[in-house]
Amino acid sequence: MKVFRGIRELLSPFARYREAALAVREGRVVWVGPERELPEAFASWPQEDLLGASVVPGLVDPHTHLIYAGDRYEEFLRRSRGEPYEAILRAGGGIYETVRATVQAEDEVLLSSAQARARSLLAHGVTSLEIKSGYGLEPEAELRLLRLIRRLEERLPQRVFATLLAHAVPRGWARKTYLRTLVEEVLPQVAQERLALMADVFCDQGAFTVEEAEVFLSRAKAHGLGVRLHAEQIARTGASHLAARLQALSADHLEMATLEDLSSLAKAGVVAVLLPGAALSLKKPLPQAALLHQAGVRVALASDHNPGTSPLLNPWLTMALAVHVVGLGAEESLIAHTAHAALALGRPELGRLEPGAVADFVALEVPPLDPIYRFGEHPPLAVYIGGERVWS
Amino acid sequence: MKVFRGIRELLSPFARYREAALAVREGRVVWVGPERELPEAFASWPQEDLLGASVVPGLVDPHTHLIYAGDRYEEFLRRSRGEPYEAILRAGGGIYETVRATVQAEDEVLLSSAQARARSLLAHGVTSLEIKSGYGLEPEAELRLLRLIRRLEERLPQRVFATLLAHAVPRGWARKTYLRTLVEEVLPQVAQERLALMADVFCDQGAFTVEEAEVFLSRAKAHGLGVRLHAEQIARTGASHLAARLQALSADHLEMATLEDLSSLAKAGVVAVLLPGAALSLKKPLPQAALLHQAGVRVALASDHNPGTSPLLNPWLTMALAVHVVGLGAEESLIAHTAHAALALGRPELGRLEPGAVADFVALEVPPLDPIYRFGEHPPLAVYIGGERVWS
Repeated sequence: MKVFRGIRELLSPFARYREAALAVREGRVVWVGPERELPEAFASWPQEDLLGASVVPGLVDPHTHLIYAGDRYEEFLRRSRGEPYEAILRAGGGIYETVRATVQAEDEVLLSSAQARARSLLAHGVTSLEIKSGYGLEPEAELRLLRLIRRLEERLPQRVFATLLAHAVPRGWARKTYLRTLVEEVLPQVAQERLALMADVFCDQGAFTVEEAEVFLSRAKAHGLGVRLHAEQIARTGASHLAARLQALSADHLEMATLEDLSSLAKAGVVAVLLPGAALSLKKPLPQAALLHQAGVRVALASDHNPGTSPLLNPWLTMALAVHVVGLGAEESLIAHTAHAALALGRPELGRLEPGAVADFVALEVPPLDPIYRFGEHPPLAVYIGGERVWS
Repeated sequence: MKVFRGIRELLSPFARYREAALAVREGRVVWVGPERELPEAFASWPQEDLLGASVVPGLVDPHTHLIYAGDRYEEFLRRSRGEPYEAILRAGGGIYETVRATVQAEDEVLLSSAQARARSLLAHGVTSLEIKSGYGLEPEAELRLLRLIRRLEERLPQRVFATLLAHAVPRGWARKTYLRTLVEEVLPQVAQERLALMADVFCDQGAFTVEEAEVFLSRAKAHGLGVRLHAEQIARTGASHLAARLQALSADHLEMATLEDLSSLAKAGVVAVLLPGAALSLKKPLPQAALLHQAGVRVALASDHNPGTSPLLNPWLTMALAVHVVGLGAEESLIAHTAHAALALGRPELGRLEPGAVADFVALEVPPLDPIYRFGEHPPLAVYIGGERVWS
């Protein structure tokens, strides 16, 4: 147990205190408020003076493809010169390049590169992150990635949430056979070994259909997994309605989503996860704040870190893009990368600093939202998970 | 004199070498090419092994408002919640807030805060930067800022290019009187003390008119200053045509510029300086690559660093935004932040690594354009100015 004091400004999604203190026991927040109101009971606890730092909840990155080998730097150069992704894909590049590199890479290469990326996220204040499989494709290769994510989790200070992603049909498979194998062999294995908490599917034009997604996700739910969808990114397919019907944790991307799509997510309590990095690099419009507000949907933000469309590891830049491109308020952006991001993982105890919540937080030298104002500059002073300092 | 070897890839705006070497004498490049072709004559020179680093020319930031006091964080929060800038301005905020803070600040406060910002730019590889006056407004206050920029120059390792900016009419002045004072008193003083190399004017709706800009810039030219314009940002005013007519070094912003505007710049050899940070934060569209190519205009990039609309200090992020939002190629983005940016300052010897050019360069651990691919992550290993290491 410990009391953190000397906090110039504490900004939690639903509260703000100046000259604040935070009391932590067994990794949870037990009290938060103005330091001068700190109850007598905490006076004898060990103390840490944060010396005028600002504090915000640990950031939550609810959508990453963090484990892979190689990069797509050459593809980035080619696409930046105007070469269409479809042509790169047809020539065996794009996602297939990453799948090839990932399948061929040794375990340690995958683990240490993902660890380095997670460390960058940590240095920016990300204390919880989701990691998807999806660059294996072959059933055994997907299971291998999920087992590696579990090993990665042991190496990282952060909280890791693993997701089985149905990403694409691997070369040489009939899509029906592949889907059946995912459902009848991979899902039961994942459930038995508890390799993932969630299942996700790339449901879009040129990817899995809404019908295929429904088959996969319904069975995932039956196995006790939370479900998510890559939805309405390339084309509007109706995936949002499926997300609503299945009461998915989240629908992610949503570049092409309509007001009706977003409203149906709102009604079903599905979180809308926006991925500004990917939208920007694919030159896709993002749903605008006015539309999101009209729909009343809860909005989360994520890096979508992946080597192809979003090699982004700075959540403050993601929040800045959400302000400038989506039109979210700066405070709203922080909520989207903390409390709402946590809801997309089904973890309401994360991403907020209030009694009962997990004591993950970030100490900043500058005002709480200053790194958003500065387009992602000014990394945190220190990062705490469960009240323990894990980075400084 | 020195030979830099062990360069895995050297990317200059108009040349690329693998396994390269670079010979420098008296701050200038005397030879560059594949290491195995290094002429005998250089064999006896002192050597520095760059150990497989990539090398690109030192970045040039040709448009900054780097010297000011205070920040506009609170304004950023209010604007992010949808409050219009005009209302903030009417209440005495916006630019007037920065002018007030700047005028009241002690010299040392202005110098040390600008120095810290220049240091951030240096850490990202910026070896040359322009700095504008403009937050003084009152004639004496503008002259003070230019004298401070000269003192700042002495403290910085970077090459600094000072610009007198006619930014806005200060409160309490009739615009005609102010313009006459700028032209008849400030400009001669600037010329006599050699306080600036260039003159710039904020020519836009609600700012100086094209006619006023012409009066100011013509006289600046007569005093031997290079001329530039803030052009076509808020509204299309015809400022580009004025830039062409005056053979300005550059026209900057250009969010609302038409093909005809850009073509007239191209014909007159005026560089088009794009400022993605400001465009993004003001939710303005940027001219697209196809249009810029059709016009055949030389494109440069800059941070437009200022506390109100672009508190940006990472040129790699600017280049990433140029790729993703403008549609420039990644190589083209680098040219825009090196050789073309140098042309906007009238300095063709900067921003390229070829015999005769100034030996300012950046060593990177990653491939030359990788920090663009990664949305601005991966700061340089080391930065050299005139062949001397000034940051690592």
